Amino acid sequence: MRFLKGHGTENDFVILPDPEGEVDVPASLVARICDRRAGIGADGVLRVTRTEHNPEVAEQSAAAEWFMDYHNADGSVPEMCGNGVRVFARHLIDEGLEKGPEFTVATRGGVRTIRVEPNGDITVDMGKPVVRGESVTTVGCQEYTGLHVDMGNPHLACAIGDPVVQLDLSHQPGFDTAIFPGGVNIELFNPVGTTRAVMRVFERGSGETRSCGTGAVATAVAAASMTGDTTGTWTIEVLGGTLTVILDEDTSYLSGPAVIVARGELMLAE
Amino acid sequence: MRFLKGHGTENDFVILPDPEGEVDVPASLVARICDRRAGIGADGVLRVTRTEHNPEVAEQSAAAEWFMDYHNADGSVPEMCGNGVRVFARHLIDEGLEKGPEFTVATRGGVRTIRVEPNGDITVDMGKPVVRGESVTTVGCQEYTGLHVDMGNPHLACAIGDPVVQLDLSHQPGFDTAIFPGGVNIELFNPVGTTRAVMRVFERGSGETRSCGTGAVATAVAAASMTGDTTGTWTIEVLGGTLTVILDEDTSYLSGPAVIVARGELMLAE
Repeated sequence: MRFLKGHGTENDFVILPDPEGEVDVPASLVARICDRRAGIGADGVLRVTRTEHNPEVAEQSAAAEWFMDYHNADGSVPEMCGNGVRVFARHLIDEGLEKGPEFTVATRGGVRTIRVEPNGDITVDMGKPVVRGESVTTVGCQEYTGLHVDMGNPHLACAIGDPVVQLDLSHQPGFDTAIFPGGVNIELFNPVGTTRAVMRVFERGSGETRSCGTGAVATAVAAASMTGDTTGTWTIEVLGGTLTVILDEDTSYLSGPAVIVARGELMLAE
Repeated sequence: MRFLKGHGTENDFVILPDPEGEVDVPASLVARICDRRAGIGADGVLRVTRTEHNPEVAEQSAAAEWFMDYHNADGSVPEMCGNGVRVFARHLIDEGLEKGPEFTVATRGGVRTIRVEPNGDITVDMGKPVVRGESVTTVGCQEYTGLHVDMGNPHLACAIGDPVVQLDLSHQPGFDTAIFPGGVNIELFNPVGTTRAVMRVFERGSGETRSCGTGAVATAVAAASMTGDTTGTWTIEVLGGTLTVILDEDTSYLSGPAVIVARGELMLAE
């Protein structure tokens, strides 16, 4: 089985080229591939397949030739992955499957527009964030209040006074299970001036991660709201690198590097 | 740059084929390759090169055609790696570079004899363990006494009454810095009958790992010593699988599975 490995701000993915939709990706195979010692190791698997071959997204086939069939390392199948779709787009461009600089990708969360920037960064339209009020998280013995932002998945983005580098995120932070019955992704950030924030993130089901695309957008939304803004361009520093988030009236954009680091053939038995 | 990835009981390695000794592997490149998110991810790098091209082991070239140029993920260059040499041997066999079932490999720790078992497991002669007395480690608030075993690198292997599955090895266990001024690899094990032990290991510089070849031999030595024995065959269960250790009068052998899971081309810039 052919594969590639790539990452976007150290959110890493194994890419499985499957243009004609012939490869089955059961959760057991995803787990074997994503195992960081017995497999290749990744946060998730991106199967690259023509939209028309996939009944669950067939209605998107007129709008987008390629479908990002995304699988989390734990076998779950979320609607979208902001850094994943950027790495997916890098692969399409590298292989000449899309020409750019603008094209669309089918996802379980709907068609997404991609733009390749002049510096090579890849930008994805992340849709309009929805603010659903405030809530509180507890890290160690500290309570922090933040903004509940719905990006298709739930976020609680908290501007804090303590330096985020000093936080201990080795344990699940507390949150209000009445507001977030299915769990929540928690961002803690330090604003730096009015266009920049340093963020750490605790993802539900994963723990602290090096980067989170939807979390970066939620952080920009919460940072902008501190001065009453709903639009603007934010630089979000995550452990794995730097992302740019653009908020406008209608939608949000996530931009940053996406690179392929290896390609080859998997010899993993299922 | 061509690469393969493989593992032995989940001690994982990136293999770099370099028969003619043309590839330079500076610590910066090793770190980039072994980075589990921005690179391929591995415990170490095994460069595969003809012994004659490497002045530091040239005197072994009459005895062993291939030199295992081993690099730890942190850039250090230890003399030997028991699971690494088994994965290295699997690669030589797979590629037809050695025919087996017995052959030799050059390492910084000297020439090692390899045997491919009928079931495909790979056995390596690990040399004679040297027992240097007893010492004590502290895990949490518990003190455990064990055997100081020198395998070229220092080990403290402790039979304990508490189930090893319940230990918290997230922090460095305490040890006697007068006896181990350069640190020590600490094994904690539960004997199961007189031929089997369940082991966990805290490796110096790495923390808890899924497996440790020299640690498995040290554990077999300590387990055998409980009944006054210095020879015998032990099954050592580690988190990453099952290893067999054979102790005889003159030397020790480490045996177990070694598999290649992927092959391809690295696109990492240095």
